[in-house]
Amino acid sequence: MTSEINTHRQNFIGLQDKYYFNYGGQGILPQSALNKIIDTYKFIDKIGAFGIKINSWIQENIDNAKTAIASEVGAKPKTIVLTENVTSSCNIALWGIEWQEGDEILLTDAEHPGVIASIKEIARRFEVKMTVCPIIQTLNNGNPVEIIKNHLTAKTRLLVISHVLWNTGQVLPLKEIVQVCHNYPHQNKPIQVLVDGAQSAGGIPLNLVESEVDYYGCTGHKWLCGASGVGFLYIREDLLTSLHPTFIGWRGLDFTNSDLTFTDDGSRFEVATSAYPLYTGLQEAIATHQSWGTIEERYDRIKKLSAYLWSKLQQIEGIECLKKDTPPESGLVSFYPKPGQDPQKIVKMLEEKGFFLRTLANPYCIRACVHYLTLESEIDELIAQL
Amino acid sequence: MTSEINTHRQNFIGLQDKYYFNYGGQGILPQSALNKIIDTYKFIDKIGAFGIKINSWIQENIDNAKTAIASEVGAKPKTIVLTENVTSSCNIALWGIEWQEGDEILLTDAEHPGVIASIKEIARRFEVKMTVCPIIQTLNNGNPVEIIKNHLTAKTRLLVISHVLWNTGQVLPLKEIVQVCHNYPHQNKPIQVLVDGAQSAGGIPLNLVESEVDYYGCTGHKWLCGASGVGFLYIREDLLTSLHPTFIGWRGLDFTNSDLTFTDDGSRFEVATSAYPLYTGLQEAIATHQSWGTIEERYDRIKKLSAYLWSKLQQIEGIECLKKDTPPESGLVSFYPKPGQDPQKIVKMLEEKGFFLRTLANPYCIRACVHYLTLESEIDELIAQL
Repeated sequence: MTSEINTHRQNFIGLQDKYYFNYGGQGILPQSALNKIIDTYKFIDKIGAFGIKINSWIQENIDNAKTAIASEVGAKPKTIVLTENVTSSCNIALWGIEWQEGDEILLTDAEHPGVIASIKEIARRFEVKMTVCPIIQTLNNGNPVEIIKNHLTAKTRLLVISHVLWNTGQVLPLKEIVQVCHNYPHQNKPIQVLVDGAQSAGGIPLNLVESEVDYYGCTGHKWLCGASGVGFLYIREDLLTSLHPTFIGWRGLDFTNSDLTFTDDGSRFEVATSAYPLYTGLQEAIATHQSWGTIEERYDRIKKLSAYLWSKLQQIEGIECLKKDTPPESGLVSFYPKPGQDPQKIVKMLEEKGFFLRTLANPYCIRACVHYLTLESEIDELIAQL
Repeated sequence: MTSEINTHRQNFIGLQDKYYFNYGGQGILPQSALNKIIDTYKFIDKIGAFGIKINSWIQENIDNAKTAIASEVGAKPKTIVLTENVTSSCNIALWGIEWQEGDEILLTDAEHPGVIASIKEIARRFEVKMTVCPIIQTLNNGNPVEIIKNHLTAKTRLLVISHVLWNTGQVLPLKEIVQVCHNYPHQNKPIQVLVDGAQSAGGIPLNLVESEVDYYGCTGHKWLCGASGVGFLYIREDLLTSLHPTFIGWRGLDFTNSDLTFTDDGSRFEVATSAYPLYTGLQEAIATHQSWGTIEERYDRIKKLSAYLWSKLQQIEGIECLKKDTPPESGLVSFYPKPGQDPQKIVKMLEEKGFFLRTLANPYCIRACVHYLTLESEIDELIAQL
């Protein structure tokens, strides 16, 4: 396996001469994906930047990108909306619900500030109530499903959770949570679930249709290693035409009639001209991963490596992993440095030595991400530094 | 001049072996801009895709992009919001106003379907009235300012116009229109003006501060010849903090406090991770244009060339330009083909011969765009084909 991964890694120039543990911030673009992007710009120059031929190619490229994404997340291509990033994806779902005064949005205490700020603005504009449930504490003890269940009310319209918590790396039981929400007693509108999947696509197996989740936002530039600027939103097929588009443009319009009605697939929520060449990069990145192994095989390797890092960290006196007793369920491994050491100073010092990690604000700690691309020897080198 | 432009054009590979008249759809990316983009991807690989160094570079790159854009449009960098495209820019302004039931939005009959559809959705959600005034008819006779003035009411909150009409190429007198709106009698909220500048930035001189316009959306990929996927919105400085962010993310948040308040410059309306390397492409494209001449010099050349094309078209029996009597004020030249000829068939046939033009739906005609990059000889070849 290791020699195989060494060969595979040669396509990731950004991994050379450094020890990279920031996949949760941004992945490493494969050289083959960059080549596709460059080839696409040259192709556009060749066949004409705007015209009949290129417009037909753009549509084909969009369709191919959705097919590639759908193959990674267990969904139909028509249920995929191409966006700029995961936060934009979440915004499409958040602003597309027809909020009524008094509705409630429940979120966890592990959500990203961008998503929280968007919910706060919705709460302000539509007189909706925002409530927060304590999930971070369930990393080592307690049942996140029970906590969520206990915070639902007859007025809850939407639950917003991350699938993989960006601070602790905890993987929430998606299907059970969706069931709890969908089965909660309601008058006419079941509680829907929006998932921030920033740390999931490419990092853990997803079967979105099977999970019955309503809205699931992702990005292509983290664990999937696409170029930054391409994300996506999955919308459950039967909700595609009931969610309202907010930011609107020609890509979401059905031009077969003159009434400016919306399309009935994911394009409904797309706006206008995007960085289409980057879509080819994401397709190539996904194909590269899939050529190495299925997402299940990649996830197995991620878990083995994160367990290895976690167990080695536990052995260093003074370092404390957020996760106790059992190894992490994802590639995100967060830990407190030795007493008296400042996380920011450690991360800065490590980067100067070629080790890329990041700090988190709450809890104030250090996060290391291992990918299936990571080598055991890289982990050994990191441990030696700490 | 011509030999000079020939040298300059060598940087635009996409102009080789073809006759390109679709700048209003998408510009031609300079080779030097593509090189910058590629170099940036390599730079990211080298210094680390996510870390302290790259995050500092990203902020610098964002600032530089805004400075470059500001230098083209007569504005301060802090009043520029980076977006994905012009339609997204318009959406930020449209959804950021706190609509009250009964408010009215006035738009012209020359607006783009994407913008109209967004206004229709706002009208539906907030019980706002949408009214349309006939501007297209003023291309050859009549006063657009008077028509707009006659359609304003005490309930009008926002006027939405294009600066350069995408179908007829007419340039509306921006400053006068803004004055009419701002001076219209009102109780407490002056009528604001949102401009769709899809066909303006890079094609005509802009002095946005001087125009006193409230919101002005643009794209980088048409007349400015940047890569697709980068646009921008100008917001009048004193309105920066009164317009509400709608799609929200970490880029718009002020992390110097823990309350998730918004920043007070254009970043307030930016969401999350974008295709940052493409920002370097737009900077290089703008620098390339500015190295050839000021926007006034480029606009002079555009007007000379569009007048040349227009006068040659007038001489072809049966072809009818939309613009009569006097030459076009922009690089957009729309015309009806000879009686009995179908615009779509002509455009398809022309593309097969290497001439890139487009059809318009309403009025159903053909549009040719001339840039300062266009050669008189290209126009002669086009005329020979028609």
